Amino acid sequence: MPYAQGEDVVAGIRTPKPIEKLKEEMPEVYEQLYNGVKLIEKTKKEVQDVEFTIEKGKLWFLQTRNAKMNPLAVLKTRVDMYKEGMITKEEAIMGVKPEYILQMLYPRIDESKAGKPLTKGIPASPGAVSGQAVFDPDRAVEWSKAGKQVILVREETKPDDVHGFYASVGVLTSRGGATSHAAVVARAIGRPAVVGAEALQIDYSTRTARVGDVVVKEGDWITIDGFTGNVYVGKVPTIEPKLPPEFFEFLDMADSVSVFGVRANADTPDDAAIARRFGAKGIGLLRTERMFRAPGRLDLFRKVILSDNPSERKELLDQLAEMMKRDFLEIFEIMEGYPITVRLFDPPLHEFLPNFEELVTEVTRARTLGKPDPEKERLLARVKALMEANPMMGHRGVRVGITYPEIYAAQVKAIVSAALELKRKGKHVDVQIMIPQVAEVRELEIIINNVVKPTVEEVFKTYGDRIDFKIGTMMETVRSCLTADKIAKVVDFMSFGTNDLTQAVFSFSRDDVENKFMSKYLELGVLPYDPFVTIDEDGVAKLMKIAIDAARSVKPDIEIGICGEHGGDPDSIKILAKVVGRGLNYFSASPYRVPVARLVAAQESLKILGKAPKIHIY
Amino acid sequence: MPYAQGEDVVAGIRTPKPIEKLKEEMPEVYEQLYNGVKLIEKTKKEVQDVEFTIEKGKLWFLQTRNAKMNPLAVLKTRVDMYKEGMITKEEAIMGVKPEYILQMLYPRIDESKAGKPLTKGIPASPGAVSGQAVFDPDRAVEWSKAGKQVILVREETKPDDVHGFYASVGVLTSRGGATSHAAVVARAIGRPAVVGAEALQIDYSTRTARVGDVVVKEGDWITIDGFTGNVYVGKVPTIEPKLPPEFFEFLDMADSVSVFGVRANADTPDDAAIARRFGAKGIGLLRTERMFRAPGRLDLFRKVILSDNPSERKELLDQLAEMMKRDFLEIFEIMEGYPITVRLFDPPLHEFLPNFEELVTEVTRARTLGKPDPEKERLLARVKALMEANPMMGHRGVRVGITYPEIYAAQVKAIVSAALELKRKGKHVDVQIMIPQVAEVRELEIIINNVVKPTVEEVFKTYGDRIDFKIGTMMETVRSCLTADKIAKVVDFMSFGTNDLTQAVFSFSRDDVENKFMSKYLELGVLPYDPFVTIDEDGVAKLMKIAIDAARSVKPDIEIGICGEHGGDPDSIKILAKVVGRGLNYFSASPYRVPVARLVAAQESLKILGKAPKIHIY
Repeated sequence: MPYAQGEDVVAGIRTPKPIEKLKEEMPEVYEQLYNGVKLIEKTKKEVQDVEFTIEKGKLWFLQTRNAKMNPLAVLKTRVDMYKEGMITKEEAIMGVKPEYILQMLYPRIDESKAGKPLTKGIPASPGAVSGQAVFDPDRAVEWSKAGKQVILVREETKPDDVHGFYASVGVLTSRGGATSHAAVVARAIGRPAVVGAEALQIDYSTRTARVGDVVVKEGDWITIDGFTGNVYVGKVPTIEPKLPPEFFEFLDMADSVSVFGVRANADTPDDAAIARRFGAKGIGLLRTERMFRAPGRLDLFRKVILSDNPSERKELLDQLAEMMKRDFLEIFEIMEGYPITVRLFDPPLHEFLPNFEELVTEVTRARTLGKPDPEKERLLARVKALMEANPMMGHRGVRVGITYPEIYAAQVKAIVSAALELKRKGKHVDVQIMIPQVAEVRELEIIINNVVKPTVEEVFKTYGDRIDFKIGTMMETVRSCLTADKIAKVVDFMSFGTNDLTQAVFSFSRDDVENKFMSKYLELGVLPYDPFVTIDEDGVAKLMKIAIDAARSVKPDIEIGICGEHGGDPDSIKILAKVVGRGLNYFSASPYRVPVARLVAAQESLKILGKAPKIHIY
Repeated sequence: MPYAQGEDVVAGIRTPKPIEKLKEEMPEVYEQLYNGVKLIEKTKKEVQDVEFTIEKGKLWFLQTRNAKMNPLAVLKTRVDMYKEGMITKEEAIMGVKPEYILQMLYPRIDESKAGKPLTKGIPASPGAVSGQAVFDPDRAVEWSKAGKQVILVREETKPDDVHGFYASVGVLTSRGGATSHAAVVARAIGRPAVVGAEALQIDYSTRTARVGDVVVKEGDWITIDGFTGNVYVGKVPTIEPKLPPEFFEFLDMADSVSVFGVRANADTPDDAAIARRFGAKGIGLLRTERMFRAPGRLDLFRKVILSDNPSERKELLDQLAEMMKRDFLEIFEIMEGYPITVRLFDPPLHEFLPNFEELVTEVTRARTLGKPDPEKERLLARVKALMEANPMMGHRGVRVGITYPEIYAAQVKAIVSAALELKRKGKHVDVQIMIPQVAEVRELEIIINNVVKPTVEEVFKTYGDRIDFKIGTMMETVRSCLTADKIAKVVDFMSFGTNDLTQAVFSFSRDDVENKFMSKYLELGVLPYDPFVTIDEDGVAKLMKIAIDAARSVKPDIEIGICGEHGGDPDSIKILAKVVGRGLNYFSASPYRVPVARLVAAQESLKILGKAPKIHIY
């Protein structure tokens, strides 16, 4: 418990004595003080800053107020007070702000390796991050597309620059305060930011920033610390915060009162391990696309796409299935015992082919030089044939599953084989196969009956063994929501893909919208917040409610979750708990957001159950 | 009334005498026959084929059945029977099949100018049409994109060829019958088709079709007649069918019982004139994009898009507004007295810029030759900056209105100026300004209050006069439907844009879907019909019902229409009448579909009102 201090101490006039001195000097007064503070805290249910004075051996309490503590201290205190019986579990859970959990998890600068900062600005959005300096937003987009990690450096920012924010891992400005455009936008979209670093002299014409003699050129690595405002030259290592046992204890307490589960969106063994450590009870979304892009596989998969010969395609896909099985083995083992929702292939095929502009350039160059390249020309023709006007709404997801059933079959083979191999080792894998982009129940029926079931039976035969598995669908088209009663009849589970659903409800292509007009919309107040960050209550959440009601009307116990990015956003969880209540069974969040999702899910559960304490004590 | 014939006549054994002969030869029997047939028709309420015999001066009726008549005869008979008091108006209206109306309107070959057909096949899908022959579907797409009018010529077609159907104005095959793939798909998507023209020898390798000595090469013009199966070399003129006064009388009868209005989608004075002639009571959708593409204007508009200077943009747009005013004057005058719904600018801006691939090719060629073209490079950079990943869901419609308010202001200025100039001439124009792509009511509020109203007031001041006008929105995003109660409060009317709404509900980009997998979906029965042709009952119509109920809950009398292509599709009108009943006030159809829409709207009205005769007498 913190020491109580008097006005003079606060003002810095006197230097306080440690409280232990009092125990030695006036043991009785100490005893009175100790009991008095205990009583106050028991009443206030909060750690207290207590002012007191001792006049002629008599103790006078002058003032008491809730203590100011850092997030970790708040959390530890809650756990302690609960264990001491001073507060209930519910009071402990409601007594920690969700943002505290987020703050505890941000990576921090490794001070031991940081060296001297170049300069210091105002810490405007939390997190520490390194990137290559770029001085205009278009360059940020360009470099980011080329796979670089960039920090946008500007004197100040305007709405026109916002596409650069999205493309950058962090933002640094030389002007403006904590409510400047740069600061507000960076916080809104979750980018670490340091603003108003006034010692920084930025010269757009030479693409440099200077502090005294030190010059940062475009492309140089810098590191910014959104907690302290420090700016460093170079790539300063960051460290994961150390989390005390109380952190995990507290979240277990939260789980124990929650009506919602929390799973993770995890595509790799690393993701899965982090998610499990942070208490995810399963994987709510395992995207499989990267399994086709991994080194050595992309070429194989390109051959599949370019082939006209079904038996050649089958053979290539068999090779891919074997490789993918190994991926699944690793992840399944980590998440053993929990449900793992694997989403079958989702993106449009042409994403796996070479870049169109580059091909046109190469073909034109070769032609102009009088040396046409027939193979490139053929490839260009195929890329053009596969290209789509609006790939987001094109030939993808279950539509590819129906037109190229061998792709889904290869994936199902890999998944079920992996589960059976683990079963041989005595490990239980709870597999859920999820079919994306469904708009009509017949799509599901065809995939389930003509692709999944026959493939699964074949694998069962090969292994001479069986497993139970579930089949479900991602609810990410509007029509799937409007026909959820029909869909519910043929699936074991549903999971809302709120990223795509938000796109469809608004008719907003996320990439285009964020580049072209979202900042203007937020600036003018057309939208109160970015609906891709926090779920849209009037549109998307309302549609989810329609879908959930329809689904539960025919299958009351069907498992329904959400696996869009909103699943880890505290405000979205609150909105969804309000709009659909217990209609959802779980939230699936990115691994680092699992802890905050667990807390918010528990807090919202208490509200739904009418068990939340009347007064929030933070 | 048709002549009665006996079995022998049908069998061709005897040649019948004209009925007038009977009147001369046996006036009494003729009198008996006349009265008898009248009585039968009065009872049957249908023109009859009556078989009779006269034996020794005595008349015997042998058999009677409903007469087989061509569509025009059916319609004329209905009107006659109604006028003679034999049937009620309702019976007359219900007694004409909607497809008869469609068939009466198809253009036909001008036989006087047709010459000898090259060959003849099976008439598989009605209509006569000319186009340049192409022998593969990819070429059809390519040429069609280049603005050519093509007819797809194949031995037979497969689902893989369907993108070629959409790109062609007609289809010709040398094999297959009336239920072949080509025939079924052509009918489904409304393309004239002749199939199984077996004399046609098609050689894909030389891209030719031959009948005897006559060779049709790729690119040669041909004409097909889907009524007769005739195939002609060259561009044979087609003629509009001659419509008797009964056609218009009948449709006026239909209107008189209808609870729905019918308007037209018309962008040009020609469209407006046809629509008015066919009885459209106004324009439900006047798209304004072509006003920016017309010769002499595209260059101006490109300068607007490429300019960074707001005052330069304003000046260029003032010039455009003056030109557009002349367009509006023409159309408004034709539709005088009826409501005219003008949709403000809708497509993404980059559609107005040069083709990306061509620019890349030109820039690369110039660079490779060592003569880079700085202006082209600058243009390419700008085109790239404006390009979008999914333009259908990108920076378009009201979003452009908000980011480039001067474009909407220029349009509003042109519209209101035109209406005021006509008012000076004593003509009344009922203007409705429609804002597209709205997803959130604030978008509307901003456009109405910050753009439309100030602009209108300025124009009023210039002309020293005022007009009444309405402001409304196109309901084409899912979110506008889900928030229709909020939107209804700020607008005078709503009109469903069911093309885009269908895209959003299914997450189907129409172009991509029709090219890539729609045929497979129809073949497998994933979808019972193409939802872009006939409205999707379970998804789109259901969402419209949600929207209409919400809107009417706050503004019961708000005007609500539909202006997607479905507005002229008989099946869609039936589905919508069933799902939303009188929730819709009008259907807006393309000009040639106005008559059929009027009939179906009337027939559905009778059903809604409970006034439809029990038995349909066709």
